[in-house]
This record gives sequence, C-alpha cells and structure tokens, in this order.
Amino acid sequence: MTDFGLQDHYVGVMKGVIAGISPFAGIIDLTHGITPQNILQGSLQLGLSAPYFPDGTIFVAVVDPGVGTKRKAIALVTEKQIFIAPDNGLLSSVMSMQRVDNCYIITNPSCMLTVQSTTFHGRDVFAPAAAHLANGITPATLGNTVNPEHCIRIPLPENRTPDGELSWQGVILYADVYGNLITSFTDDQLEKKGKKAVGVFLKNGDFVPLRRTYGEVAEGEPLIYGGSSGFLEIAVRNDNASLTLGLKPGDNIELRVQSQNTQT
Amino acid sequence: MTDFGLQDHYVGVMKGVIAGISPFAGIIDLTHGITPQNILQGSLQLGLSAPYFPDGTIFVAVVDPGVGTKRKAIALVTEKQIFIAPDNGLLSSVMSMQRVDNCYIITNPSCMLTVQSTTFHGRDVFAPAAAHLANGITPATLGNTVNPEHCIRIPLPENRTPDGELSWQGVILYADVYGNLITSFTDDQLEKKGKKAVGVFLKNGDFVPLRRTYGEVAEGEPLIYGGSSGFLEIAVRNDNASLTLGLKPGDNIELRVQSQNTQT
Amino acid sequence: MTDFGLQDHYVGVMKGVIAGISPFAGIIDLTHGITPQNILQGSLQLGLSAPYFPDGTIFVAVVDPGVGTKRKAIALVTEKQIFIAPDNGLLSSVMSMQRVDNCYIITNPSCMLTVQSTTFHGRDVFAPAAAHLANGITPATLGNTVNPEHCIRIPLPENRTPDGELSWQGVILYADVYGNLITSFTDDQLEKKGKKAVGVFLKNGDFVPLRRTYGEVAEGEPLIYGGSSGFLEIAVRNDNASLTLGLKPGDNIELRVQSQNTQT
Repeated sequence: MTDFGLQDHYVGVMKGVIAGISPFAGIIDLTHGITPQNILQGSLQLGLSAPYFPDGTIFVAVVDPGVGTKRKAIALVTEKQIFIAPDNGLLSSVMSMQRVDNCYIITNPSCMLTVQSTTFHGRDVFAPAAAHLANGITPATLGNTVNPEHCIRIPLPENRTPDGELSWQGVILYADVYGNLITSFTDDQLEKKGKKAVGVFLKNGDFVPLRRTYGEVAEGEPLIYGGSSGFLEIAVRNDNASLTLGLKPGDNIELRVQSQNTQT
Repeated sequence: MTDFGLQDHYVGVMKGVIAGISPFAGIIDLTHGITPQNILQGSLQLGLSAPYFPDGTIFVAVVDPGVGTKRKAIALVTEKQIFIAPDNGLLSSVMSMQRVDNCYIITNPSCMLTVQSTTFHGRDVFAPAAAHLANGITPATLGNTVNPEHCIRIPLPENRTPDGELSWQGVILYADVYGNLITSFTDDQLEKKGKKAVGVFLKNGDFVPLRRTYGEVAEGEPLIYGGSSGFLEIAVRNDNASLTLGLKPGDNIELRVQSQNTQT
Repeated sequence: MTDFGLQDHYVGVMKGVIAGISPFAGIIDLTHGITPQNILQGSLQLGLSAPYFPDGTIFVAVVDPGVGTKRKAIALVTEKQIFIAPDNGLLSSVMSMQRVDNCYIITNPSCMLTVQSTTFHGRDVFAPAAAHLANGITPATLGNTVNPEHCIRIPLPENRTPDGELSWQGVILYADVYGNLITSFTDDQLEKKGKKAVGVFLKNGDFVPLRRTYGEVAEGEPLIYGGSSGFLEIAVRNDNASLTLGLKPGDNIELRVQSQNTQT
C-alpha cells in the first residue's frame, strides 16, 4: 500500500526489488491510491483491509511525508501479520485492531539496498526488508526492538454523546472513489438507552435515514448504512454522495437514535 | 474484472481473500476500469478478452448495481472457462461467444465468507467462490444448477440494413481510454451484395473512410478500421476521436458499402 | 511497461496471453502510465528502472505509435536482461546504460499469436515473444540478428557548459505524478572547476537552491535535489512543482555552480 499512484514506475520498481531478493514471493497491491501524504486515510484502509489477508502476510505500507528526515522505519509484528512502514502513525489502525506482539526498528544495512536515496525508501528500505522477511529471516534481524507504545499513533476521531442526548457527534473520515462517505460511526453507536439509530443529520440540517441496502431508497436518494468497511457509510443511490451532499472529510455529522419526535 | 477502480482498497482486499483460500492461485487483473455500473461495457470487454486467456481460467466479474437485492450470484461453465458474476447481464457476451455447458447459483455458505456485507459481494461471495474453484471444488458444490437460458442477457445493439440499401445502421458501443470509438459493426458488415464497405457517415454528415491502419491517414485525420476488439473502431490518428468527432456511446452511425456515387 | 493505461482491458489481455503460453511466469507491472506515445519518457523510465530488476528479467515495453507500419519488433539482449519492444527508440536508455550483447528482429510466426491485428502488437507479438522466452527458447529463435547500432536511438538532451562559465544548460525531462520535475542534470554536473553546484535558475529568472532533502526547505518552497531517478529533480515541498513553478518537459534551466556572487 502506497500513495505513489500507478502512473509512474515507482511501484513497479519496488516489486522489481522484491523479486530480486525473494523471487517466489507473491505480491498483492492493496492500493496505491491513498491521497498523497494522507496518513490517517492510509492507516484506516490498511487496518480495515488486513483482516482479509492471510495470517503471515507481510504488508509494506508507504505514506511517508517524512522520508529523508529522522523518522524511524519499523516492522510491527502482530498476532497475525507483519507490517513494514514508516513510524508516522500509518500503523495506528492496525495497532488498535490487532494484538501487537513486537516492534523492530529497521536499521540493518544488509536488509536494505546498498545505495540509498533520501527520497525513495519504499524502494531502498521498506521493499527490501519485506523481501528478506519473506525469505525467512526473523524480524529481529532487521534491528532492535522498540516499545510499540512509543510508536506514533494518530487517534481516530472519537464519537461523542452527551449523557442526556439521544445522539452521537461524529465526522466524515474519507470519501471513496464512488463518493461514498465513510463516517466515524460504528455498530457500537447503533443503539443508545435501548433506542435504535434512525439516521444522521448533516451540517446543513438535512436528515439522511439509516437503511440496510441501497435498494431501500429511491434512485438519487441518500442513505446511511453499515458499510463493508465496518463503519457506517453515507451514500446516494446511483450517485456520488460526496458531490451531491457537499460533504468532505472532517465534516461534522450527528447520528440520531429514535425518539418520539424523530420517526423515520 | 470490476468497476471498482484502483484508487481504493476494494480490489486489493478481494485478492487478499483469494490468497487466504487459495494461496497459489495466480491472479490477473483484466481491468477495474469499467465505467461504474455499465454492465454492457463490462459484458463486451469480458467477452472480447476471454478468448485470450487459457482454458480453465476462472473469471471473477463484478459490475453489480443490484448488490444487496435479490439478484442471483452465478457460476457459468463454458466449454473453455468458468465465469463468476452477478446474474445481471454481465455475462451476456460470454454466453453468446462461447458454448455454455452449465450454470450454477452460488448459495453454499461454506464457499463464502462467514460474515457478509450487503454491499461488497466481490469480497464476500464472488472472490471466495472463485478461490474455492481454484482449489478444485466442482462448480456443483457452489449451488444448484439453473438453466442458462433463464439468466439475464443484455443484447448487443443489432446492426440493421434495409434490403434495398447499400448501408448498415449501427451505433457507437464505447470509447476506450484513447478516445477510440468501438462500433457495433463487425467483419460481417464489410460486404453487402458483393460490394465492399468504404467508410461511415456520422450523425453530422461527415464521412470517415475505412482504412487498414493509422498510417494510411494523415495526422489528425479520422479513419474506421478493423479493431483489435473484433469490432470496427473509429479513431483519429494521434488524437482523441471521441473528443475530436464529438461522438459518444449510443450515437448512431451508418456504414456505407461502395456504390457508384460514393468513392473513397 | 506500456502507455495503455489501466482503464481498458488491454494490459489484462496481454497477461492472459502470457499466462496461456507460460503459465508459471511471474508478471510485474512496471508502469502503464507512460504518456501516450511519449517514447522518450518510456525510454527513460525503463532505463532507470531496469537495474532494480533481477538478472534475467524479460521486459515487454510497448509505446508504439508506429504499430501497423514497417517498424521492426526487436528483442535486445544485454549483459543482464532481455528487452522486447518496437524498434523506435524506446530502448535508447537501456542501450546507453547496459552493455548490449545482441539484438534480434522478431519475425518467427510460431512465437506470435496466429491471428494478428494491425493495431495491438502488444497482445499479438510482444507478449507472446516474451512468454516463449520465459519458457526457455533462445532469443535467436525469434528471428535474425540485427546490429544494435542500426536500432533507432533517441538521444537524451545533452547538458552544455561553455568553457568559461560556471553553469550548465539543461532541460526538464518529465514531470512525475506528484509534479516533481526530473531534469537532465546528473551527479556529473554537481561540480565544475572545483566549485560546487548551488541551484538552478528557471527561465523566469527565479532561483531554486540545491538541497539534500525536502526537510531542508520550508513547506511550499522549491528545491532541487539528487532524485531517486539518478537525475537531479526539482520539487516544491508538499506541493506540485510543475504547477507551482509553471514548468514543463522541454523547458530550459540553468544549473549554477558556486561563485563569489551567488551564495545560497
């Protein structure tokens, strides 16, 4: 996973490096379409995707605005998989979603390319480290351990609910390529005080009802539903919700649970 | 093949699911650039591409506006390959281009992910079914057979030719990324009553001559030629025909066969 | 590597053809994002990327505006790898960066698809030739040798430096997807007469300083640095240099080495 896009040769070169070190390693592109330098988005997409990959998968994640500075390169070993990335918060979601067993700082020059640029550690550091792991070296070969608590984490926005209110305050996390809006709400917010969520109020006061599938609203109508991401998502049937509703990442939204005055 | 694009993690996650079930299955991206929800375009690209893939290939095709509704998930077994897709017409071209041996409705929960979303059957249903097939289960394991005649088909636009006329009426099917326009005309229309096709008239009356290769017209000039797709294609040498000629999918065009009055 | 993009099924079909001939060949996408018909850009990206791929790699490179004309299809064998491409200059950088051992004209019909289009030799000629090589045929099986000196080469723009001057005249070669501008300057230009380069003057007179990493300039400020490509690159920290500075491929720039009047 990178924010390199596929237009240039950067991703291809990383795979060439891997093939040179570990010729039989299978390589899967998670995505190279992370918005450039958007660490939070990368963290989310990685955290949400990892459970669908086999145990033992070695992830290489590069969204790395600090390349060439002193930020560390780390290898995070969880109960399930290994994650190679810069220590800049990109593994935040993984760290909160999987049990972390260990973390190593990648410093061993024999696990990197001999000549290193200051700008392309994906090629020179991260890809080689992953390839050597695929060849069977232990993570400890990469460098010293570091307490994972000391790794940088970017917290997800928290959903807040004042005690007396039948609502949750949350935000739009990101918009996918269809314009579907992934929100900060999860299944945990679908009930409060025995009452069920009915939909969200947008910042302009519009109400978007909670539904199970697109099919339950008319074409062109919005809905919020339990998305495949594990978060509630706002969509417009057969249209682009981000454009239609004028919402973008960071915008506040309010999830309302059913009360006498707000029926769907 | 999907209409998911490569910007998000959706395609990567499908591959992760496949790798978890069938670690040694080779995966090839046909394209993820189908215009969202354009089933006809997906059908065409799949039908035209399949002959170039090996016998026994298992295709996973997801252009699925009806996900979460009651549309069926099917596995179509042809003389040559297997196609996993929603039953919405996406396999129309394959069904008309290959001999269909059998068709199964995918219902066996042990061939799907345990937890299923209502919006991402590519991950939860189609990818797992394909991976289990790659592992060697019989297609019948997926579910009951269905008469392929009962599967949804989207017919290709038919080219019409009034008996007395030396022309065919057809349409633009789609524009590729270069702006080349794939038409509904095939080699079958290149002759009528012993006379040979000479070119097409566009809706604005302009005439585009039939040529063998780009090299036979000057730069910036249009031509129609026997495209690599099996359909006649309209292009402009070193330019974007869709933009230059102002044509789009669905537009009517007329293929003219040679008469005394229309020489090239 | 192609200029086909990933929106259509062209690249996928090439891989299907390879899989049909050589089922166990591993395939890596270098990039399919070469600007359509930009042979120079393709040549550069291929030349710069090849060293990162294993010895014995078989490259298939298709940027081929002359498809369907009499341009030759060639297989270039270097000390390290094999390159399949049209003979149009696309292998220029490889030929200047690797020792060329031999070159063959691809003419053997048994190494191509039986039916060949006039417009898609990537599928019909180049991919099959590469797949047969992956299966172990000798390059000489593809066709007769040709003197590599007779292959078409597109020279890189030369950097010039009048004897008496403390500067080099060069150009912008291309802009990558981030807007970073790859220049024609290399490490060889970093010193002249014992003095060190300090930065470049743009055509509008603006001066951009030479720095080691992005971190050494403020956000929004430009720098020129030794890029991961082997060429000096102009960037703007956290912004798009191509847009911000208004520079594009072909623009002249002047690299200045330190003099008493030009301190950084």
